[in-house]
This record gives sequence, structure tokens and C-alpha cells, in this order.
Amino acid sequence: MLYNRRMLTSTANERVKLIRSLQSQRKTREKEGRFVVEGTRLVEEALLSGSPFDFVFYCNPDHRAQALLDKMEKQSIARIEVSPQVMQACADTEHPQPLLAVLPFPALTPNANSLLLICDRITDPGNLGTLLRTAAAARVDSAILAPGTVEPFNPKVVRSSMGAHFRIPIETLEWNEIRMRTQGLNVWLADTETQGAARYDEVNWTRPSAIIIGGEAEGPSDEGRALAEGAVFIPMPGGSESLNAAVAGSVILFEAVRQLLSQ
Amino acid sequence: MLYNRRMLTSTANERVKLIRSLQSQRKTREKEGRFVVEGTRLVEEALLSGSPFDFVFYCNPDHRAQALLDKMEKQSIARIEVSPQVMQACADTEHPQPLLAVLPFPALTPNANSLLLICDRITDPGNLGTLLRTAAAARVDSAILAPGTVEPFNPKVVRSSMGAHFRIPIETLEWNEIRMRTQGLNVWLADTETQGAARYDEVNWTRPSAIIIGGEAEGPSDEGRALAEGAVFIPMPGGSESLNAAVAGSVILFEAVRQLLSQ
Repeated sequence: MLYNRRMLTSTANERVKLIRSLQSQRKTREKEGRFVVEGTRLVEEALLSGSPFDFVFYCNPDHRAQALLDKMEKQSIARIEVSPQVMQACADTEHPQPLLAVLPFPALTPNANSLLLICDRITDPGNLGTLLRTAAAARVDSAILAPGTVEPFNPKVVRSSMGAHFRIPIETLEWNEIRMRTQGLNVWLADTETQGAARYDEVNWTRPSAIIIGGEAEGPSDEGRALAEGAVFIPMPGGSESLNAAVAGSVILFEAVRQLLSQ
Repeated sequence: MLYNRRMLTSTANERVKLIRSLQSQRKTREKEGRFVVEGTRLVEEALLSGSPFDFVFYCNPDHRAQALLDKMEKQSIARIEVSPQVMQACADTEHPQPLLAVLPFPALTPNANSLLLICDRITDPGNLGTLLRTAAAARVDSAILAPGTVEPFNPKVVRSSMGAHFRIPIETLEWNEIRMRTQGLNVWLADTETQGAARYDEVNWTRPSAIIIGGEAEGPSDEGRALAEGAVFIPMPGGSESLNAAVAGSVILFEAVRQLLSQ
């Protein structure tokens, strides 16, 4: 195995500057249509999905990372060895991993419209990432991000979503587009109010449906409320005010999965 | 309303030193049997629960915080006004809130044994806190923390648990104690392996049960596996490797709630 032996050691390098700007600036991500994926597991997900790669940085690869680098060599993906200092400068995490890749935004298109997740003003990147991870596990047809939701290529979202970006379409849309996309669907809003709302497990999720999950800080928007034909709630015997937004969304999505699998 | 007008401005004050040590040192928390609660919402939960208070720091209270301070005055709880600099020095969060309290560890005792959550090597404070928040909403009889799980009075756990500490017993136990506590219960282990495991929704959760949730980094321990009489899995149509540990635990706990409420 022959790798390029010229290790990249300068943080003034153009690729390093690009990565740092992609990590910190939404504007750069949107202008370039590119984002950064950190860590062996996420890079593996991207590779398995068949996503194109711009290039990969590696530093002290362990066995698993090396196996991925070997696969990349066969696909002629540019692999650049970097010093620990360069990897640290590029990483969004405190403890950099052996692999980091720059990729174009995945362009997955929904091929059905039977279960949609709509994230409405979810501002916490960890919450959005966790919800996208669940949505991928539940195989929703699309995760739609409504206005006021954190951008999906934010490094913290990417990290906590565990590869969801390569498994399901994630679409950032305006409300008029969301209204068009949800025509003919039963649209439900997850609410903490129980009055006038249906129990989440008494809804028929085997019909084409969309579920709107509001953020914890501000709750769902007026547009989200207007779009929904009804609200659903999760009964909480403990009398708590609410669940974590990602948890509430996950409980509802997996009730939908339970019904779909029990058909 | 008369408050003590001598605002605390020195970070060398003994109470400030105590708070900073309680925030950063598990050893101090255990020696003192005390912990710190930050923010209006958590302080409100503590007050509603009837928990005793050592003292409260306040700084620029808004309307809601002031209402709580008035309630505390009636209960003769020590309230000390502090400067923004002191509040910042005491806070574990970047944006300090108007209230911060020091309290003894809550001493709730389980009054039934029909649904237990066992956290096994959950090392991420945010995950543990989110799971405890769900456990409180689901009204488990007790949340048991097995060896290798993050300590429940860690500031990040307290913050993400949203008052669970005041609603349900949280017990840190050794495995031999956990074995005794779970005698007569159906003990299930949440697993990502589907072979030999039952679907989580095909288990009868209306019988007295315990569910073991392993951490994401290392999974459940050998002791946890040995204690469980069987494993349950969550079917994932998306073919993902796993869910976030707090999400997996929440989906299973709310399936138990769904069955219990449908009886």
C-alpha cells in the first residue's frame, strides 16, 4: 500500500482553512454545498451510502480506519495524511478522531410519502441530530426542517445524527412548500396540551401521515399549528410538564413503526 | 417586601467556594450530601416537591423568579442576592439564570416495585438526564443506577433531567443490591441484537418488570446481561445500528406506559 507520504503539517493550508470555515460557518457550507464528517463511524456510513467524497484527512489510523482508507484507495478518493495538530485544528470535537471527510450535501429524494417528520423550531443541535437518527431508524420517507430549525449540516447535528444524512432525505423547506408536500396526508402536531388532542397511540399511523415536532424553547410555530388537522399527546402518568423534544418525537415515530409492522 | 440588601459580590465568599466545589467535585457532593440546582424551572420543581433548601442565590430576578423568592420568604428559606459576577462564577452554564439553590440530596423511597429502570454504564450525562426525565414522566417506581453509570448529581445530569430528582427515587446501587431489588420481577435487557430477543412491544409490561438500558459506548455490563431473563429489541425498519440510549429507553418505557394505561 502506497500512501502519499508528505504529511500535511500546516494549518495555513487551503484545505485546512476550508474545513475550518465549513465547521464554523453556515454561510460557507451553503455557498460550497459541502459539509464535514468526523470520525470513523460516520465516514464509514458515508462510504457505504455511495456518497461522493471531496477528500479525507487521516491521522494515526487504527485498524478500522485503515480498512476504510484501503477501500477509499480502490475508489480513488483523495486521502491526505495530516499531523495531530492539523487534525485538532480541523476537528469540532475535543478529542479528534483518525478520519475527517469533506463531502457534498447528500441529494436523497423521497420515494414515498407515507410517513414524514416535520421539525418545527428545533433549535438545539443535539436534539435535532438525535431526532434525525431516530427518523432514519424508523425509516421515515423524509425529515423536513421548517423555518426556525437549526441547519442540518451544523457539526453538532451531524455528529449526533449518526449518519442519518446518508440514509434519509433531509429537506429544509418553507411553510408554503411544506403545505404542498403534505397534501393528502394526515398531519398531526405533537402537543403537551391534552385538551382536544388525541392520544398518540389512538391515531391510525398506517394511513399516510406527517408528525410535527416543536422545539423545547418555543414550541411549534403558528404555521405548524395551522397546518395540523389535529394534535396528539403522550400521556405522562408522572405528571411532568413535557418530555425532551427528541424523546417525544421518537416515542411517536416508533408508535407509528409499531402500527406499521403490526399490520 | 424586604430583602437583605447586602449584595454578595466576592467570589472568595465561603458559600461561593462551596457551590463551585459542589459543581465540579463529585467528592464534595458526596461528602456534603448536597447538590446545586440552577435555573428558575428546576428551583420551582424543588420547591413544589417540598424539598428542604440550604440557601438560594439570586441575581436580577424576573417576574417568575421573584414569585418564587416571595414563596421562599414565607418558608424562611435563606435568600442571598449576588452580583452577576458571583452568579457567573457559580454557574455551570454559560448563561447563568436568576436563581441557583443548594439542597440536600432528595431522599425519595420507592413505594412500589412494578416498573423499574436500571441504567447500566450510561456514561453520558445528557443521556442519563434525558432518561431520568422520561422515567419521571413515565412514573417508574425507581431509577436504579448500576456501577459504571454517571453520578446523578453531576450538574449536566441535573440540568437535563428537568426535576426528575424531585419526582422519582434515583438509587445508585451495586449489582448484588440490584439482584435483591429485582427479585420476583421480570427483568429485561434492551439489546441491539435481535436474535433470541423479543420485540419490545410483545412483552407484557403490565407484570412487575425492570428494564436494563446499557450505555452507548460500552453497552450493558456482564452483570446486567446475567441478571436479565431475556432481551428485548426495537425493530428498526431503517436498518440503523442503534438508537440513542435515552431514546431507546424512552421508547420502551412509554410502551410499558401504553400497555399499563390500556389495561
